Amino acid sequence: MESMKNRRTVRKYLSKDISSELLNDLLEISFRASTTGNMQLYSVVVTRDPEMKERLAPAHYHQPAIKTAPVVLTFCADFGRFTKWCEQRKAVPGYNNFQSFMNAFMDAIIVAQTFCTVAEEAGLGICYLGTTTYNPQMIIETLKLPKLVFPATTITVGYPDGMPEQVDRLHPDAIIHNEYYNDYTSADIDRIYAYKESLAENRRFITENAKETLAQVFTDIRYTKKDNRAISENFMKVLQQQDFL
Amino acid sequence: MESMKNRRTVRKYLSKDISSELLNDLLEISFRASTTGNMQLYSVVVTRDPEMKERLAPAHYHQPAIKTAPVVLTFCADFGRFTKWCEQRKAVPGYNNFQSFMNAFMDAIIVAQTFCTVAEEAGLGICYLGTTTYNPQMIIETLKLPKLVFPATTITVGYPDGMPEQVDRLHPDAIIHNEYYNDYTSADIDRIYAYKESLAENRRFITENAKETLAQVFTDIRYTKKDNRAISENFMKVLQQQDFL
Repeated sequence: MESMKNRRTVRKYLSKDISSELLNDLLEISFRASTTGNMQLYSVVVTRDPEMKERLAPAHYHQPAIKTAPVVLTFCADFGRFTKWCEQRKAVPGYNNFQSFMNAFMDAIIVAQTFCTVAEEAGLGICYLGTTTYNPQMIIETLKLPKLVFPATTITVGYPDGMPEQVDRLHPDAIIHNEYYNDYTSADIDRIYAYKESLAENRRFITENAKETLAQVFTDIRYTKKDNRAISENFMKVLQQQDFL
Repeated sequence: MESMKNRRTVRKYLSKDISSELLNDLLEISFRASTTGNMQLYSVVVTRDPEMKERLAPAHYHQPAIKTAPVVLTFCADFGRFTKWCEQRKAVPGYNNFQSFMNAFMDAIIVAQTFCTVAEEAGLGICYLGTTTYNPQMIIETLKLPKLVFPATTITVGYPDGMPEQVDRLHPDAIIHNEYYNDYTSADIDRIYAYKESLAENRRFITENAKETLAQVFTDIRYTKKDNRAISENFMKVLQQQDFL
């Protein structure tokens, strides 16, 4: 638990490979995590081949980790395997809908996060690529994902090349609510975000981007309304294409 | 890691309480997990009050764990807090859309699963309630969740009253794909599900429900097309109500 308190995301890796034996062990342990109705609505695609990493890179906006990590894992929401089983067993599956997608997405994230925890326990470093749902169709094509399979998240993994500083988090009291959701007053918001706003690296962020506040760095540059709307529209389109809507 | 290999979902708890200190420690560790752009798009509502459990019970179809667990945790996708911060900092937030909901949902599940892992390490037992998204509006009302907050999952937690048998899982080879998604042939499906189908408890399941195959127990009783469609429709409606669509 001590190690989990000190965890950091690792984006730079040694060239040292991860043995198949270790990787499979870690994945097998993570498949022990909770899953909807014990249906295990996920698949994991392991990318080691440099050519395949090259092909995945554009979908992830060429983040360096995708090419420098020895292993890239795409965790997929997968209702395809279960549906095939139903069809082969005189059962009429009804999993081509949003609720089923969300079940499978949740199952995939639970397994991905369990993998991260056990990988870190084993001395590996991990990084989530939030870009997975930005251009899912590129990943679907590259990894040949069939209907009712959707890339939920991608994790790069390897032996850490150095350990970055631990980043800030909000005070737990800002996140934990007792009995009811205690909505935030403007004084609460000021207090909750004061520490984050005080950090030198965050103040540098503002200057570098010629903004007035840290929040503007998020809304105007990192996670813009325009991008979010375009990604949302595409997300729905690809969900439909994969038969989930 | 050995303990994670042997983990089981625990639905029966001793009456022993969980101290606030331990609970807050475990939550604080789980807030160290990866989060989208370090935005921490989640909130956790802690339910201890028996009256509140009583009020949450119908949303979870009166599963006994909700009333017998000393602590019930509702992990919420939360873009509300971050949006308020933006609004107070001359920044125009653009997080009332599907992509932002999915970011927040993923953040909430990552934290929930990290909590489960550390709670189990600390000798507690947990159970996910998959019912959370079935009647989200009931939970929203009971816990007073504001706009841009949505209940992602619920976990019951307590000291285990006995340890159930470990349930089956598919062979890891059925889930891991190398380089490409290797779609399943009907021979693969037969092989993958043979063990599950051979288990006495699953065969009993078929008889008890007067079905022909185990798959039919899932499609006709546990996760039916009709239910999935109704839940999907309601899910979208409540996402809209919470300003995410």
